[in-house]
Amino acid sequence: MALLEAVLAKIDTNLDAALARLFALLAIPTISTDPAYASEVERTAEWLVAELRGLGFEASVRPTTGQPMVIAKATRPNAPHVLFYGHYDVQPPDPVALWDSPPFEPRLVETPEGKRIVGRGASDDKGQLMMFVEACRAFQESGGLPCSVTILLEGEEETGSPSLAAFLAENRAELKADVALASDTGMWDRRTPAISIMLRGQVLEEVVIRGADRDLHSGMFGGPAINPIHVLALIIADLHDEAGRVALPGFYEGVTELPEEIAEQWRKLPFNGRHFLEEVGLSVPAGETGRSVLEMIWSRPTCDVNGIIGGYTGKGSKTVLPAEARAKFSFRLVGAQDPEKILASFRSFVKARLPADCRAEFISHGASGAQQLPVTSPALGKARKALREEWGKDAVLAGCGGSIPIVGSFKRDLGMDTLMVGFALDDDRIHSPNEKFELSSFHKGTRSWARILAALGS
Amino acid sequence: MALLEAVLAKIDTNLDAALARLFALLAIPTISTDPAYASEVERTAEWLVAELRGLGFEASVRPTTGQPMVIAKATRPNAPHVLFYGHYDVQPPDPVALWDSPPFEPRLVETPEGKRIVGRGASDDKGQLMMFVEACRAFQESGGLPCSVTILLEGEEETGSPSLAAFLAENRAELKADVALASDTGMWDRRTPAISIMLRGQVLEEVVIRGADRDLHSGMFGGPAINPIHVLALIIADLHDEAGRVALPGFYEGVTELPEEIAEQWRKLPFNGRHFLEEVGLSVPAGETGRSVLEMIWSRPTCDVNGIIGGYTGKGSKTVLPAEARAKFSFRLVGAQDPEKILASFRSFVKARLPADCRAEFISHGASGAQQLPVTSPALGKARKALREEWGKDAVLAGCGGSIPIVGSFKRDLGMDTLMVGFALDDDRIHSPNEKFELSSFHKGTRSWARILAALGS
Repeated sequence: MALLEAVLAKIDTNLDAALARLFALLAIPTISTDPAYASEVERTAEWLVAELRGLGFEASVRPTTGQPMVIAKATRPNAPHVLFYGHYDVQPPDPVALWDSPPFEPRLVETPEGKRIVGRGASDDKGQLMMFVEACRAFQESGGLPCSVTILLEGEEETGSPSLAAFLAENRAELKADVALASDTGMWDRRTPAISIMLRGQVLEEVVIRGADRDLHSGMFGGPAINPIHVLALIIADLHDEAGRVALPGFYEGVTELPEEIAEQWRKLPFNGRHFLEEVGLSVPAGETGRSVLEMIWSRPTCDVNGIIGGYTGKGSKTVLPAEARAKFSFRLVGAQDPEKILASFRSFVKARLPADCRAEFISHGASGAQQLPVTSPALGKARKALREEWGKDAVLAGCGGSIPIVGSFKRDLGMDTLMVGFALDDDRIHSPNEKFELSSFHKGTRSWARILAALGS
Repeated sequence: MALLEAVLAKIDTNLDAALARLFALLAIPTISTDPAYASEVERTAEWLVAELRGLGFEASVRPTTGQPMVIAKATRPNAPHVLFYGHYDVQPPDPVALWDSPPFEPRLVETPEGKRIVGRGASDDKGQLMMFVEACRAFQESGGLPCSVTILLEGEEETGSPSLAAFLAENRAELKADVALASDTGMWDRRTPAISIMLRGQVLEEVVIRGADRDLHSGMFGGPAINPIHVLALIIADLHDEAGRVALPGFYEGVTELPEEIAEQWRKLPFNGRHFLEEVGLSVPAGETGRSVLEMIWSRPTCDVNGIIGGYTGKGSKTVLPAEARAKFSFRLVGAQDPEKILASFRSFVKARLPADCRAEFISHGASGAQQLPVTSPALGKARKALREEWGKDAVLAGCGGSIPIVGSFKRDLGMDTLMVGFALDDDRIHSPNEKFELSSFHKGTRSWARILAALGS
């Protein structure tokens, strides 16, 4: 414990220097989606490699078919091996006019709640990845890392990680570790840390229903001609039962109830489903009857229509019977639900509801299963203990309604679970003007990673 | 009968001269929708007034808030009084490149089926209105009209007749006659005349369903947040029962079965519902079970969704829960269905299906009742006899799936039924490039109007 105390003391002492390094990184406009910034992306990768080499890592920029990866490695013989993942690219700052200060001129702002770091990437994800780097620095300056550490930093997360899967497949041996760590998620609130142990998977599917070979006049054909909008509406209406459950055959296969420990923690969380909905102008939970709002978002599967279009949609009226109508569906998956089986069940469901003269075209926009870190995972136990020591309270074992594809890739391609510990806050305005990261998040987040590394190495 | 024989002989003799007059009218680009052609519209009205004055009519161009009307009157004391309606404006000729000859350079084209008149307005409606004018000419040159005749020619039918209702209201006394005649409809086929005795009415209504006060991320909110697309789909699905009938309470009030005489005529018509649908890539009649295709189009009410939109409709996927979804509905009405009652029933139906946190906005795009000429109408009986004599076979007493608002105005504002006799064919390409009118339609149509006028005057 003496080593850890020294490491934590070093983090406290070096906070200003750590901030200066983060500001240097935030000053680079690493906008991965815009080809005009390709050299800035390259410069960011080089900057990170130089930093990591300075900490004794064997580091390099690795080209891909897209933006380069940064890989760095520091080995400690006979110690556990962790792979840390973060991304160094950022969202474009537009609309720039809404920023109170230039997005790539980071600064520290005083607020009644404390100091905050303002700038594009402060929270997502440069600020988060640098906490881990600073934790490593404190170990290296105090005698060495407690684990073997591989760091993988991606430069195209904000553009959907097009090169990542191929890169992982080609570098499997190099990247395989005992457990993956990721810092791209949030805290429960500014005083309560969280570990995201459940990520919903998703199936994204577009359906086009076609009837007549042209648009028809409803005066001439209204009645005997089939209307694809009507067919699509009937399909959508059939997708849920009266209790709000998804009516696809086999949909709930692999969905299990929450472990009691987690269910109990969630029940006790200061979360008010009604207030959550009121923030967006709603008041009554829709969805499955008998399930809490938090449960529905974090641990229950859903089916939604995300878009629909057909016929005349301009101003006024036009009495057309359209030749086609289309809708985009998304299914959020949990537990062991099989995306391929659900896709097949959905397609059968649609086909079974096609009347004479109608055809369906299916366009897949991706499918991935849910990810879950078992409550019994030793790494999870160690991280929980470490966070309790830093924050003085239990970390929330959270679900996450959205999907983080990297976690699925690590599991599928490298056989690793991922421990997701992040220090963002809901009001960090990621992807928006005036993105910020609390200085307290940065400081205590760095200390948290030091504690977690120490725990994992013990 | 000697008079009528003389009139018909004159029509035959004067056919070339009548064609020359029609061509002069077709050569004017009377495009009412385009302000650049305002002077051409004016010139057309003046041309018609000059023609009608030449036939002994008291005629004038009458300004409106839109395009001018032409009114002409020839009085025969103690004789029945008819009001003839037609429109002298035409659709724009675009796309001009698809015409085989310039749209406003009318010409006679030889085809294996006979000669045809090609040019914009040949069928819709200059060719049709000139048949009536030429029939009047033949009477005037043979000793006088058999009835008092008022002619009303509109210059903005192709732009939705914005000034017509006010004009009728202001000139009610002048325009009121015993019966109205209109020539803007079609024949059953090139050898079988038709009288349109039923026009479906319509109710056009747009509905916007709103839920949350902004678009939501389906990862964050999918499950507990209500989805307006889903709500709208459920409403659409509920609008019809299993037998294809419209499920609105009270919807079928005022819908009666066809008179047996008409039902029998329709059953005997050489109309194949399957072939009708096959023309547009369909094969099996949708809609009400137990009703023929012709019945559904001509004499049964319907409900259709003409357009729907909500959420993300671009390429790929976006997991959004939209704040709103909207759809455009049209109801086709028959018999004595009350448009206002149906509108009210529809709105109640929608409101009754709104879950918590959802609001509906209704946008009306118009409502009008169905029009029906009683089979027992004396004018109809006379016209049927006249057409039988000209064509050697019975006229089809047809329905018309679409709506012709002028017929409703004549009934509502002037208390007149309208006898709709038209000589267009389905392949006349009205509103399209290479619009044409069969010379045989023009010739025998003129003779038909002469016979009808003689019959109505007797």
